[in-house]
Amino acid sequence: MAAALSADERWMTLALDLAARGLGRTAPNPPVGCVIVQDDEVVGWGFHPRAGEAHAEVFALRGAAARARGATAYVTLEPCSHHGRTPPCADALIASGVRRVVVSALDPDPRVAGRGVQALRDAGIDVNVGVLEAGALRQQAGFRSLTLRGRPWVVAKYAMTLDGKVAALGEGNGAVSGEAARARSMTWRDALDAVAVGSGTLHSDDPALTTRGVCGGRDPRPVVFDRRARSSSQARAWRPGSLLVTAPDAETSAFEAAGVTIVRAATPLEALTGLGRLNISSVLLEGGPTLLSAFLDAGLVDEVRVFIAPKLLGHGLPPLTSPARPMHESQPLRDVTVETLGTDVLVTGLLSDIPRL
Amino acid sequence: MAAALSADERWMTLALDLAARGLGRTAPNPPVGCVIVQDDEVVGWGFHPRAGEAHAEVFALRGAAARARGATAYVTLEPCSHHGRTPPCADALIASGVRRVVVSALDPDPRVAGRGVQALRDAGIDVNVGVLEAGALRQQAGFRSLTLRGRPWVVAKYAMTLDGKVAALGEGNGAVSGEAARARSMTWRDALDAVAVGSGTLHSDDPALTTRGVCGGRDPRPVVFDRRARSSSQARAWRPGSLLVTAPDAETSAFEAAGVTIVRAATPLEALTGLGRLNISSVLLEGGPTLLSAFLDAGLVDEVRVFIAPKLLGHGLPPLTSPARPMHESQPLRDVTVETLGTDVLVTGLLSDIPRL
Repeated sequence: MAAALSADERWMTLALDLAARGLGRTAPNPPVGCVIVQDDEVVGWGFHPRAGEAHAEVFALRGAAARARGATAYVTLEPCSHHGRTPPCADALIASGVRRVVVSALDPDPRVAGRGVQALRDAGIDVNVGVLEAGALRQQAGFRSLTLRGRPWVVAKYAMTLDGKVAALGEGNGAVSGEAARARSMTWRDALDAVAVGSGTLHSDDPALTTRGVCGGRDPRPVVFDRRARSSSQARAWRPGSLLVTAPDAETSAFEAAGVTIVRAATPLEALTGLGRLNISSVLLEGGPTLLSAFLDAGLVDEVRVFIAPKLLGHGLPPLTSPARPMHESQPLRDVTVETLGTDVLVTGLLSDIPRL
Repeated sequence: MAAALSADERWMTLALDLAARGLGRTAPNPPVGCVIVQDDEVVGWGFHPRAGEAHAEVFALRGAAARARGATAYVTLEPCSHHGRTPPCADALIASGVRRVVVSALDPDPRVAGRGVQALRDAGIDVNVGVLEAGALRQQAGFRSLTLRGRPWVVAKYAMTLDGKVAALGEGNGAVSGEAARARSMTWRDALDAVAVGSGTLHSDDPALTTRGVCGGRDPRPVVFDRRARSSSQARAWRPGSLLVTAPDAETSAFEAAGVTIVRAATPLEALTGLGRLNISSVLLEGGPTLLSAFLDAGLVDEVRVFIAPKLLGHGLPPLTSPARPMHESQPLRDVTVETLGTDVLVTGLLSDIPRL
């Protein structure tokens, strides 16, 4: 049984839920949610819907209007203190007359990095930092990775049988996991900026890489890793916004003609840096084993999400083809979660720390 | 949240818990528990401790004595109606004056098979059959398999990484799962009649196949599958009661001299039938992939228990080496359970129906 939440934690949970609506839509900005509470009642709320639009605090203050005076504002990320495309939210909060601001996590943007909180405190506002910070860091992993590492947060996803096979050998294939798992993975496509596959998966499955069955969902940008750029330019993954990651000298005119953006890279790290330059803050690696192992072996997988279907296959394709090593050198996951989804089990965990100042 | 239990279900849960104390100790008899309840109070209880000792009902009636009159008896298996090594329990219950008998599951023994319940009803006792039957069937799987199929219930157990590897390649090895998983698997060794490994595991790991860290625990009978009988007769698995399953023409004099019982079989089915003749009602298949796949491919694995450790290895030994087939022909598990144990996940399920009349 989880411990009961404090009032601050309850309101911050609401702010985090609001922020989540921006996931996959705000890069290079972070997803942020804000709730303004007066006498235990919400008087204003908002979230950052996409880069170029107003920040969460602006929407919340607009809703609260005069009722912000003396209220408490809950924000999932430290309010900005600099003039970007919008004026500083710290200034707006001060002007609104709020008495107290509760912040989940500090902004790692070097132009903010504590200055937002300092500005509020200098104005006499009571500021509390760190409420439900772990949840906020997790939600902001993409933004933090892009801001501090210049490359997206990488989530590897696969589905395997209870004997560790992601596909049958040869032609006789079929889905590994069930409908509930499929639905969950669609919410990830909705929430991450890009979805990546290798040329093998493009060739064998011709996936559309769209988000299906998510209410109000958006499609992630398809990223195809194909060193030789020999994939069919007729594959379903190619659409405006699609990216081809290929070798520096590959011939790509057919793809360019089809409106595909080309990223040239010789290594997985160069590829991710190239995606980061295009403001892609998070990537869902969907396969197959070759692509996944290349990123894993380069130390570039940050998070793993695995569906396990309770069935036995025998010989088949394993999820990874990484070089052999002793068991004690296997890579442990941290912050592991386990959930049953229909007949399947979902295990998630982190391989990297979420970047923070 | 599970639905609240009825009073009958609560008392039967207690009877099943008592019966469980006999697991691994009663073959070829079933584990059985009995509780006698008068005015919502336990006046007698018992379980069958091992073959040749008294049945559960006898212990319970002895404890209840005169307070059995007008009481309700809860028994996890239909009371016997035949004269075996002990007189019929149905007669003892009738003589005790109990007013009502609640039975979880009918006895599949053809000498009973409903006659116990009929005898009680003929004596005017109110009998209710089927309370928590699923739990009773599960607990009696070994007895039911031995009684109705002439061979043990086979439970395959393995531990793998989140990328489906049960061991590293080569020498560099180490435990896959953690301490809580190890402790749980020790309770299985305590509760199953035998534990089986192949000659490869015997050679590489030299396992003792004993039960460690279980209070009041007993050791299962080690069963080594070694077609050519070329294993070392000095291996730790050999002790009084150990079994060697080998080819009909293998030379086994060294093992016989060491007190090992020899079972000669040309197929997995013959092997299990041989174990059944020795009153082994349940076998825990502990490895490795060759042994496990041989039984699985012969359709002889009844239940699967898999620990999944949240870590990634890369190349390594898969749990199964069964022939390739399409994904839609993979073998689905039924009655799947999922549990977290320390850092590991335990997934269990059935491949066979539990034998019943």
